[in-house]
Amino acid sequence: MVYADQGRLALMHKYWNAANYLTVGQIYLQHNPLLKEPLQPEHIKPRLLGHWGTSPGLSLIYVHLNRLIQEYDANIIYLAGPGHGGPALLANVYLEGTYSEIYPKITPDAVGIQRLFRQFSTPGGVPSHVSVPTPGSIHEGGELGYVLSHAFGAAFDNPDLIVAAVVGDGEAETAPLEGAWKSTQFLNPQRDGAVLPILHLNGYKISGPTVLGRSSDESIEKLLSGHGYDVHFVEGDDPMQVHQDLATTLDLCYAKIRSYQEEARTHGFTRQPEWPAIVLRTPKGWTGPKEVDGIPIEGTFRSHQVPVASVRSNPEHMRIFENWLRSYHPEELFDAEGSLVPELAALAPKGDRRMGANPHANGGTILTELDLPAFTDYAIDVQKPATELHESTRQLGKMLRDIFTRNAAEHNFRLFCPDETNSNRLGNVFEVENRCSVEPVISIDDHVSPDGRVMEVLSEHLCQGWLEGYLLTGRHGLFASYEAFAMVSASMSIQHAKWLEESIKLPWRKPVASLNILLTSTCWRNDHNGFSHQGPGLIDTMLSKKGTVSRIYLPPDANCLLSVADHCLRSHDYVNLIVIDKQPQLQWLNKEDAIDHCTRGLSTWQWASNDEFVEPDVVMACAGDIPTLETIAAAWWLRKHIPELKVRVVNVVDLMTLYPSLLHPHGLDEATFINHFTHDKPVVFAFHGYPRAIHEVVHGRPNAERFHVRGFNEEGTTTTPFDMVVLNGMSRYQLCIEAMRRATRVRGLTAPLIAECNDILTRHKSYIQANLEDLPEVRDWTWTN
Amino acid sequence: MVYADQGRLALMHKYWNAANYLTVGQIYLQHNPLLKEPLQPEHIKPRLLGHWGTSPGLSLIYVHLNRLIQEYDANIIYLAGPGHGGPALLANVYLEGTYSEIYPKITPDAVGIQRLFRQFSTPGGVPSHVSVPTPGSIHEGGELGYVLSHAFGAAFDNPDLIVAAVVGDGEAETAPLEGAWKSTQFLNPQRDGAVLPILHLNGYKISGPTVLGRSSDESIEKLLSGHGYDVHFVEGDDPMQVHQDLATTLDLCYAKIRSYQEEARTHGFTRQPEWPAIVLRTPKGWTGPKEVDGIPIEGTFRSHQVPVASVRSNPEHMRIFENWLRSYHPEELFDAEGSLVPELAALAPKGDRRMGANPHANGGTILTELDLPAFTDYAIDVQKPATELHESTRQLGKMLRDIFTRNAAEHNFRLFCPDETNSNRLGNVFEVENRCSVEPVISIDDHVSPDGRVMEVLSEHLCQGWLEGYLLTGRHGLFASYEAFAMVSASMSIQHAKWLEESIKLPWRKPVASLNILLTSTCWRNDHNGFSHQGPGLIDTMLSKKGTVSRIYLPPDANCLLSVADHCLRSHDYVNLIVIDKQPQLQWLNKEDAIDHCTRGLSTWQWASNDEFVEPDVVMACAGDIPTLETIAAAWWLRKHIPELKVRVVNVVDLMTLYPSLLHPHGLDEATFINHFTHDKPVVFAFHGYPRAIHEVVHGRPNAERFHVRGFNEEGTTTTPFDMVVLNGMSRYQLCIEAMRRATRVRGLTAPLIAECNDILTRHKSYIQANLEDLPEVRDWTWTN
Ligand SMILES: Cc1ncc(C[n+]2csc(CCOP(=O)(O)OP(=O)(O)O)c2C)c(N)n1
Ligand SMILES: Cc1ncc(C[n+]2csc(CCOP(=O)(O)OP(=O)(O)O)c2C)c(N)n1
Ligand SMILES: [Mg+2]
Ligand SMILES: [Mg+2]
Repeated sequence: MVYADQGRLALMHKYWNAANYLTVGQIYLQHNPLLKEPLQPEHIKPRLLGHWGTSPGLSLIYVHLNRLIQEYDANIIYLAGPGHGGPALLANVYLEGTYSEIYPKITPDAVGIQRLFRQFSTPGGVPSHVSVPTPGSIHEGGELGYVLSHAFGAAFDNPDLIVAAVVGDGEAETAPLEGAWKSTQFLNPQRDGAVLPILHLNGYKISGPTVLGRSSDESIEKLLSGHGYDVHFVEGDDPMQVHQDLATTLDLCYAKIRSYQEEARTHGFTRQPEWPAIVLRTPKGWTGPKEVDGIPIEGTFRSHQVPVASVRSNPEHMRIFENWLRSYHPEELFDAEGSLVPELAALAPKGDRRMGANPHANGGTILTELDLPAFTDYAIDVQKPATELHESTRQLGKMLRDIFTRNAAEHNFRLFCPDETNSNRLGNVFEVENRCSVEPVISIDDHVSPDGRVMEVLSEHLCQGWLEGYLLTGRHGLFASYEAFAMVSASMSIQHAKWLEESIKLPWRKPVASLNILLTSTCWRNDHNGFSHQGPGLIDTMLSKKGTVSRIYLPPDANCLLSVADHCLRSHDYVNLIVIDKQPQLQWLNKEDAIDHCTRGLSTWQWASNDEFVEPDVVMACAGDIPTLETIAAAWWLRKHIPELKVRVVNVVDLMTLYPSLLHPHGLDEATFINHFTHDKPVVFAFHGYPRAIHEVVHGRPNAERFHVRGFNEEGTTTTPFDMVVLNGMSRYQLCIEAMRRATRVRGLTAPLIAECNDILTRHKSYIQANLEDLPEVRDWTWTN
Repeated sequence: MVYADQGRLALMHKYWNAANYLTVGQIYLQHNPLLKEPLQPEHIKPRLLGHWGTSPGLSLIYVHLNRLIQEYDANIIYLAGPGHGGPALLANVYLEGTYSEIYPKITPDAVGIQRLFRQFSTPGGVPSHVSVPTPGSIHEGGELGYVLSHAFGAAFDNPDLIVAAVVGDGEAETAPLEGAWKSTQFLNPQRDGAVLPILHLNGYKISGPTVLGRSSDESIEKLLSGHGYDVHFVEGDDPMQVHQDLATTLDLCYAKIRSYQEEARTHGFTRQPEWPAIVLRTPKGWTGPKEVDGIPIEGTFRSHQVPVASVRSNPEHMRIFENWLRSYHPEELFDAEGSLVPELAALAPKGDRRMGANPHANGGTILTELDLPAFTDYAIDVQKPATELHESTRQLGKMLRDIFTRNAAEHNFRLFCPDETNSNRLGNVFEVENRCSVEPVISIDDHVSPDGRVMEVLSEHLCQGWLEGYLLTGRHGLFASYEAFAMVSASMSIQHAKWLEESIKLPWRKPVASLNILLTSTCWRNDHNGFSHQGPGLIDTMLSKKGTVSRIYLPPDANCLLSVADHCLRSHDYVNLIVIDKQPQLQWLNKEDAIDHCTRGLSTWQWASNDEFVEPDVVMACAGDIPTLETIAAAWWLRKHIPELKVRVVNVVDLMTLYPSLLHPHGLDEATFINHFTHDKPVVFAFHGYPRAIHEVVHGRPNAERFHVRGFNEEGTTTTPFDMVVLNGMSRYQLCIEAMRRATRVRGLTAPLIAECNDILTRHKSYIQANLEDLPEVRDWTWTN
């Protein structure tokens, strides 16, 4: 099978020239876009910014995918791993017409081309990387490594879609990328779309050779076929031969993909197919200058960014540059007005089939909202606060189970988790859903099947990357992780937040479902796993993201968790962190109170306070389940031992309410803030995370210095649960001491009580060493009046 | 070649029984350690914590490596990827005698065994995971994924050493682990030691099957041989057959390793060897209970943690447990005193050859300090502050070059970098050192060779993991990364900091060289790469680590960078972040002033201040190179336009000086703090990172609310350098406005000047859009009097 239409290949070569021409133009030119005049220094931009090296490869693939789409009416989106090749993607979406539709100022003529050039990587213009403003993109590629996980996420539950994923050979060295090849073991040809990886071996990264660039075809074949791929090599530096081979190979790959799918869709899933993958070996900076100043450029790392510099000031460089640019023969590509000549324009797919216009790459346009059950159906019947123990996340598990059921027909919801669904007490989902695997299943396996939608892989990177791809193509999901190990993919949370920060500025990008991250197995209750598992750091990371997209919730019990989860699953364009432990814990609020509390974001818990009719001596604030437990137990102890001390308890479920309202849309107005925290009374604050983060948040609030925060102070090991809070100075007794110290009005009464608290702490230490368990009075404490 | 000594294998089997017995004992028993009495509920611990499933595999390997060491006098250390198998490693270092030497209370007799059991995972005892207190470990394994990168780091420049690295099949799904197999492409048999990966396919992770556990031998063979390994399978559930096969295979692997090394050391490096790797398929929880309550346990995920629970209260479980424990026949393993019987004790290696005692696993004991040149030799001759532009990191590159040269004989220094050494302006190292690669080198490559010690791989995970392994085995290094992408391996920085936090508490762990991380290509000067490359978040992450180990330096210029780098390279047991950009930048301090400044950590820059003889109206503080530039330029502008305003400039190079001294050893005492910042004058603070982090740090300082911080506010794109500071409100003009607003004394004078600043900002916007470059008055600004 050899691709036979030579005439078409010749035209495609010209189209590729046009793309390359526009790429170079974006990097270099500010005037004279079509070289109608002799090139002058002032036509050149003063600062030359952009990445040429990867661009001809990206365009080559684009042009060939266009053909595939046209010939088969294929539904394809394009993910550019080497996202630094921004100008190539811009060139292609411009040539196919999408760009002008979305950005009407960039007209399909000489004026438009000049604007296209000038805006690139300049102030007020567009970024140098494939990015949110680039039509057709769901992947920015600035931070290399996620193209394959995003691609698979996009393909899940999109049976008709093919996701072409270009992987740079440098990018292929990153851990997240290497960890994503195995996604094939989770892709089901019966119900999912396909990913076509195109590993682009241009031999170099920024300045060194690449591992795979130097590997033999044989090694690469082994590696990828070990992951289950059927590997096709396309190699060369003669354009027409490469066009021929690539076209032939793409036809072959397309046929294979469709035949696997047809087979599975006709006869049911039987086995994991050998999905095709393409290895493309072409020179870096192909068609660029061969040599500059006697040094080879094309085919070397030196073409990575700007292959010939100082063009304005160095006439020899100017000559090289002009020859390069003219080698594409713009006069043959664009007509007198500067529009792409019709026989080339005809090569682009039409309408939504254009990769820049494919609705899957603007997921919000095809988003169906989740059909959510009433979260109150899963509420725990809390008759009296703080009397019964329940695993809060288990209630969420039940709700997730029913979300799976209600949305089964839409198949637009998945749960992603590094093998901890059961451990995190979300196991009720297995009543209706399975873990997904297309590898052989055996009898002792627990709820594993090729059509499961619980995506368990021991990789936070893969879980999060899949989910991001799934969300950006218009679906919904939840990533549940041990709190500490959510830091493993923290940089992905950052990059996704950045994506959203940009996307909400663009009216044509429609809102997508939020990235919901459930952090459980938290620092306070990882007493059995020890220090490595104790780290609430993702809160600090997300605090730095913009208020427009970043949300942090610390529900103190099951009913609040349900309310928060309901809110998050309905929301759009946010990164929602939800932090709560999985162990049995006291429940505080009945469903009505929980809804009210979560709607406000924080509230004063009157039942736990004793400051009716007076200003309190001290405000005891808490955010997080364990801090709430310790705070309430402290308030209870104080009420019993020193009723003269007027204590107000404030519970914070939405951390962002504490931010000054200028900084975050959830920030309480000052009057409400003062209503809860008073204007100047001391606040003893028990916080789930690193305590000093609270100072970062409340700065700017009246008398912010009066916030005295206890939290996770990086003290941990394997010990008892209560010892964890003692080690970090956040135990009920330490909170009592702090409250009594800060409340000056009752100072005369506190000395013996402080001594008593210290005694209990001493007793605690020796008790746990003797009994390996916590003091019964602590373990079995409940609220009594 | 078949391992022939059946008698020895039979003894090894008993030794393995002893290790398994001690493992189970640690998880379950608090009394009756050798089952001399009938088992009673009160002998059982009240909380059963620990991971059984992985342990028999870990011990099996340990026992067999012991034999290899004995027979060949081999120099081997053991890295347990599934670090949750803590009790197995403890059992083995106890059996070989190392544990009692380091912890004399845990005697080699019944009393010692009982203490060993009781301390495990209990308050005041030892962690449940392989961890810092575990002799012989350089790898904690709590956060899965780094065992191979640590192993290769340990093997680099350790020609005699073999690093056995056990990889869990769940762990093998993590991205960092998958990204580390390719480390073979950087391992030189001539000068480096060897890594022997042992991929332990026990089929399951916590509750699901593993990808590789379900893959065929053929796929695994392809995968690993694609990475260059020579794969050996050992599979089975009949212990004696597995003993036989594993012994035979280990002999074979050992012979291959030594022959590759001998070949390369005799004839020079010629090609990358096919390093052996072992794939071990044995049941999860092997030798544990087969069934509990009719449900299969051994060989399933159900044996992951505690395979039979409620032993105290459920008599049937008690029976299962007792049978299990007695199946190891403790009476045949330990003598009347509870000491290991002599014929088993004889199986352990002796002295430093015991894996728990190998000095490489306690790197500080064999650390040779670096021979550092005088850093002042690389100083820039700064005659007058703020008049000349230099690339600061280039001076560091020269110093690194000479560090390579001076320590060439010790070969104990490497530079790790994701392919950015040149880009980061550290390229002078290539005058004396090469990039490392054992793949084919071709003529257009730039300084690539199999004996290079510049480790460039496009993986922050691999760079950092290698460096950590290198450091923990007693060597030195630097990890240089684009600032934003240091977040990719942030969780590794956290875990390494945790390791150090624990290690400094143990006198027997000797100090190792600090983990030095150079963050360059910073947010402020990634105007050309755009938003994805703009993220100073690692500062926030490291601020939460303990003051005992965490350091953050923001040198404002080359001479300060040299002084800081010198200090960091001499230091021990810290994580040092050094943050500075690579672009040409104004230089402030001559070498004497730089030394003085860096020694203090912060100082008032008198030359830039105009508050002689009076208290200033406003303190203008800055931390970081670009914030310093903007602050000094602001001070200059204010002095020119409103000399009545008394401004003091304070520059912070050591961020930790701002912490209250109780919180960090570098924290300035209050008097010194007030000397610089006054007691109550407004402070306009320009900060390199997210501004609110400063509030987290200065909380507790006198009138901390008067700190008004500008910094990176998550505003970015591709634009001009100055526009980046304008977008984030940190430009000189915005700092001037803020200073004038805050300085109440001169209020009458400021209105027209504030208007002027705003005018310039407006002019700036239109200028850069028209000219694509910054205003000349900004770009060319220097300090004048
Ligand atoms: C995680 C990460 N680390 C480092 C970089 C810096 N960087 C940008 S491009 C590049 C080289 C990419 O090489 P390759 O993937 O081969 O792309 P191509 O050769 O096609 O340009 C590097 C290291 C990055 N963008 N992301
Ligand atoms: C990065 C990370 N994510 C999640 C976990 C939680 N976890 C602990 S053990 C484990 C399963 C490990 O499976 P495997 O590597 O196969 O070890 P083994 O079967 O030998 O116990 C998981 C997911 C972790 N420790 N680290
Ligand atoms: Mg490349
Ligand atoms: Mg396993």
